[in-house]
Amino acid sequence: MTLSLSRRALLFLGLGATLTLPVLADEGMWTFDNPPRQRLKEAYGFEPSQEWLDKVRLASVRFMDGGSGSFVSKDGLMITNHHVGLGCIQNISTPENDYVANGYYAGAREKEPACPGYEVNVLMSTEEVTATVLGAVKPEMTDQAAREARKGATARIENECATASGLRCNVVSLYQGSEYHLYRYQKYTDVRLVFAPEQQIAFYGGDPDNFTFPRHDLDVAIFRAYEAGKPVIPPAYLTWSRQGAGDGELVFVSGNPGSTSRLSTVAQLELLRDLVLPANLEFLKRRLALLHAYSARGQEQARRAKATIFGLENGQKALKGRLEALLDAKAMARKAADERALRDKVTADAALAKSLGDPWATVAAAQKKAASRFKESRFVGFGGSRLLGIAGQIVVYVDEVKKPNETRFEEFVDANLPSLTNRLYSKAPIFDDLEEATLTDQLQYALEGLGKDHPFVKAALGGKTAAEVAKDAIAGTKLKDVAERKALVEGGTAAVAASTDPMIVVARKLEPLAREIRKWSEDEVQAPTTRAGEKLAQARWKTQGKTVNPDATFTLRLSYGVVKGYPAEGTEVAPRTTLHGLYDRSASWGFKGPWALPQRWLDKKPALNLETPLNFVSTADIIGGNSGSPTLNKQGEFVGIIFDGNIQSLALDYFYTEDQARAVSVDSRGIIEALRKVYDAPALADELTGK
Amino acid sequence: MTLSLSRRALLFLGLGATLTLPVLADEGMWTFDNPPRQRLKEAYGFEPSQEWLDKVRLASVRFMDGGSGSFVSKDGLMITNHHVGLGCIQNISTPENDYVANGYYAGAREKEPACPGYEVNVLMSTEEVTATVLGAVKPEMTDQAAREARKGATARIENECATASGLRCNVVSLYQGSEYHLYRYQKYTDVRLVFAPEQQIAFYGGDPDNFTFPRHDLDVAIFRAYEAGKPVIPPAYLTWSRQGAGDGELVFVSGNPGSTSRLSTVAQLELLRDLVLPANLEFLKRRLALLHAYSARGQEQARRAKATIFGLENGQKALKGRLEALLDAKAMARKAADERALRDKVTADAALAKSLGDPWATVAAAQKKAASRFKESRFVGFGGSRLLGIAGQIVVYVDEVKKPNETRFEEFVDANLPSLTNRLYSKAPIFDDLEEATLTDQLQYALEGLGKDHPFVKAALGGKTAAEVAKDAIAGTKLKDVAERKALVEGGTAAVAASTDPMIVVARKLEPLAREIRKWSEDEVQAPTTRAGEKLAQARWKTQGKTVNPDATFTLRLSYGVVKGYPAEGTEVAPRTTLHGLYDRSASWGFKGPWALPQRWLDKKPALNLETPLNFVSTADIIGGNSGSPTLNKQGEFVGIIFDGNIQSLALDYFYTEDQARAVSVDSRGIIEALRKVYDAPALADELTGK
Repeated sequence: MTLSLSRRALLFLGLGATLTLPVLADEGMWTFDNPPRQRLKEAYGFEPSQEWLDKVRLASVRFMDGGSGSFVSKDGLMITNHHVGLGCIQNISTPENDYVANGYYAGAREKEPACPGYEVNVLMSTEEVTATVLGAVKPEMTDQAAREARKGATARIENECATASGLRCNVVSLYQGSEYHLYRYQKYTDVRLVFAPEQQIAFYGGDPDNFTFPRHDLDVAIFRAYEAGKPVIPPAYLTWSRQGAGDGELVFVSGNPGSTSRLSTVAQLELLRDLVLPANLEFLKRRLALLHAYSARGQEQARRAKATIFGLENGQKALKGRLEALLDAKAMARKAADERALRDKVTADAALAKSLGDPWATVAAAQKKAASRFKESRFVGFGGSRLLGIAGQIVVYVDEVKKPNETRFEEFVDANLPSLTNRLYSKAPIFDDLEEATLTDQLQYALEGLGKDHPFVKAALGGKTAAEVAKDAIAGTKLKDVAERKALVEGGTAAVAASTDPMIVVARKLEPLAREIRKWSEDEVQAPTTRAGEKLAQARWKTQGKTVNPDATFTLRLSYGVVKGYPAEGTEVAPRTTLHGLYDRSASWGFKGPWALPQRWLDKKPALNLETPLNFVSTADIIGGNSGSPTLNKQGEFVGIIFDGNIQSLALDYFYTEDQARAVSVDSRGIIEALRKVYDAPALADELTGK
Repeated sequence: MTLSLSRRALLFLGLGATLTLPVLADEGMWTFDNPPRQRLKEAYGFEPSQEWLDKVRLASVRFMDGGSGSFVSKDGLMITNHHVGLGCIQNISTPENDYVANGYYAGAREKEPACPGYEVNVLMSTEEVTATVLGAVKPEMTDQAAREARKGATARIENECATASGLRCNVVSLYQGSEYHLYRYQKYTDVRLVFAPEQQIAFYGGDPDNFTFPRHDLDVAIFRAYEAGKPVIPPAYLTWSRQGAGDGELVFVSGNPGSTSRLSTVAQLELLRDLVLPANLEFLKRRLALLHAYSARGQEQARRAKATIFGLENGQKALKGRLEALLDAKAMARKAADERALRDKVTADAALAKSLGDPWATVAAAQKKAASRFKESRFVGFGGSRLLGIAGQIVVYVDEVKKPNETRFEEFVDANLPSLTNRLYSKAPIFDDLEEATLTDQLQYALEGLGKDHPFVKAALGGKTAAEVAKDAIAGTKLKDVAERKALVEGGTAAVAASTDPMIVVARKLEPLAREIRKWSEDEVQAPTTRAGEKLAQARWKTQGKTVNPDATFTLRLSYGVVKGYPAEGTEVAPRTTLHGLYDRSASWGFKGPWALPQRWLDKKPALNLETPLNFVSTADIIGGNSGSPTLNKQGEFVGIIFDGNIQSLALDYFYTEDQARAVSVDSRGIIEALRKVYDAPALADELTGK
């Protein structure tokens, strides 16, 4: 559930407002068609022009595997986080050239290698389509019928748009389903790597320092978008600031926050606290133990598992923080009191109460249902192996695309198919031994969790051991070959039904069970929750006015805040770190472990201006998906790049406070200092700074 | 109560064990006659020889105004904290030469200036005298009679010892009054300043960074002891370590922890929580506001108030931390459970129960009594002004010394008189305007707190305003002249009774009231608490064995621990900081405020090895009074000097855990690097390192 967007989405957790509070000072992830003009003017005397807004929007990019970024040169350079680009860096690495460990700098355009399966989007325009979407829903419809009606209307709008514009078109549900907007994206799928530092400096401090501040990470990677073999001339790009951002300075973050839980009911939070988060943590613990054991087999195995371990450890720390927040009895009591207050207001308004019914009870009932089959929902599916995931996607694909758009699973509707196939046909390497280890564990885990008599376990194992099934399927499958995947997809139902590929055979056996539980969950849990959510939104808007921005939806938003330290551990945490701090932390730990420095950083130290800022914090409101978002000043210049939130922000996914939660950026000055003095990349630094 | 020892004592707060737990790994402030040989051997394979113990003991010094230190050269150099030596540094400063702000380096022995009122002690030998002291107490005696019997026996032992040895002799009560030991001290009263850095670097980070880690303070001051105009040849001195202490290394702390509350009952902690600490915090807030307003009058005023503000802010932060600890309902519940468990054990042993009675009830009743007159005990006395304090001491002195030793107030018994007069006759400067401001406020505060009809308020104000009384008394008094004080003391009761000095007149009026409340408190609160404490100690020893070390008594103790980081803020705090960290913190705050650097440190940066360790943490068990204690390695070499505990140690005055609480030292390597490269003091560095 919390792992749904992508592991990267976990990097940022929401700064939540409680139900009855108005939006706080720097709170809010605002859509570009409705920026917080009034609040910016009142609090900071700043009024962004339409031109300013358009330029920032058009310079912002979304990385489809869960991050954000921006164009930063007229020749299509894009900057994002190293951890957003890690998949690519790992995929173009080989045992001989480990660019994750050693970093990468192409040095010349013709040498820039393509990233398999990458896609970035630029939001070209938006248009409200609420009337059309909600007009398709009749009051007498069941929850399920209402959902299909909305989906049908949405798909029609998307298809018409795509045909007319040639763009990627998505209808986005905002304000808990009370508004629908059509988003049109320019899409780039030829994304090439230009520069990446060593992971050791990008993720400096490793798992211990993750989600913390003070911090010393050069968490950046630089890509270039291409079209027809040539660098893209982007619709807009950001000017690089040589001054960075000063203390108390107003800054903006333009990016794609993934999802927030700010409007969740107590029943939803309790399910998370009591069932979902503990189960996810149990899974992460188990899988990490397995991966560490796999890594211990040798250097090459360690290299193969590195990106996955990185993601899972990151998730583990984030989930622990969230669970701790929910275990805070006082905070939960406040949340409950807020909810009661809203319910009381609704009850006090007879007409409103009649029109809304009791959406809280509906949500609570849906959570109870979810709990009743929670164990199955954890195991039934195509998890544990990339190859099984691919096989499962193919098997479902050929069935889904035959249906009308509105009855398909979300990722198979026409508007999403190009992205799906882009990933399905990715040439990213797959390692048999790693696949075998994780798939064996996943099947064994399901056996332990569901018991040997559960239909899923029977279907998956067929009387064999988990290890046997995994070994046979991986040894025999041809799905590592992208052409094989294409042939099956293009061959449709018949080809899939006839396939003797052992992984497809397994996926075929599992497919009805996976479909059943997913359909059940969508009908019995999600559909009523969504419709109740619309009513909760109404309750909120009608009693409190439209004082808040919509929950995050992995679409483009503008946040703002100020560069500002915060109190912690009895003192004041400074708003930034410098290169001095990097060397201090390393020396303090004896240059060892997660605080070891790449050799290059030791060698080049005398050349560096050690007072150069490296990372800084601001009060901007961010969450998972914002990774790689540019941090901008009032002139719309690039002053830094978001890469994390501090540990305090973990507690705030559900309970908002601005006291300590901070967004963490790499400073634009630190990036240039490193490119020039550590990486001998003056040409790249010049291109970024427009010199 | 918590302010009783001295403001410096607040720098360290106890790492307390709960009642029913055995002593934990590195817990304990051990007397030198009973070092934890067994534990050191088992945990660290180390067995200190008697020679090792004697050398460390004889090289350790106690600064009588509340700190510790050590001899570090054969020519009598002593090192302690800057904040322990601050009184001297301030006192030898003038408006033209502000050594607190600018630092001080004598450069040659003949230039080393004397510190007014200073006294340091070296513990030459100890001897158990329990039989004699407790033999004087008969079971049928009242609590008050028992106290006088103990005091009488104690005074006789001390006087005999002083006469025989010429040393300072004190009987120390250990293990909650179940053991008494005679401590013999060599005393040095000619203490001269050799070196002090700027307070800005000694107390780098100011109030915000106080009680925190990571930390970057050069909190040292170097003195030399003289006798008969010549440098003292100390009984022993510590060799300076050039290697410092490594990660996980066993280290020792030899110093004078002031007091611990590890054996306090729940009733005592509740009184602290509900009455004492909130009142002290209210006072500190008020007095600090006054002093800040006074400082704002001008640069010279700011200079005059600096040391006092430093002390009060320090106290404020410490008390806030303690209060927070006591407000932790869970921790208090644990404490209560521990206490119940001990009571149950006593109840289960009929003979023991009969012999002990119910000491918990006795303590609780005494706390109730204390609460009944708590407000008076806050105001009735000679507080608010140094001159009034001196006047009060003189007035009481001439009465007290006429009595037999055992019936005098503690500080007036023969053994303590030399120290008392050393301080009473101190030439430390007194500033009229500052005196007037604080005395006015103190009298006004008493008026507000007690009401205009309270006898103390009537006696103090006599119908005038607080401002009038303060102004007249300070303008008219001659007590700034040390000779005047001596004349009154030597003139005895008659001279004091005849004095028309207006401050003496005020003190005479207040004296009966101050005496009454103090006597009442000693008889009604302290005497029964002390006797019940002995019984609580017996309950503990008899049911659990003598598994713990005695509570701290501002006498010499040996602690031990390892150099070790700790988890905080989601990551691992490194065990040390380096000079890189100092410059990082300063640059991160724009070289401003508490993080500004002295000009010398900016100028000399290029000369420094920035990877030199500056501060480090260890698990050694310390508390207020340990300020300036040497940190030693297994070879007994000086590897650092204690100057603080981290913020987590504040919560542990009452509830022990080793998870995060740490003692903070300045690293021996950082001191030498600074002396050589920043302060151009190679001769001093050579003397310290024995080069």
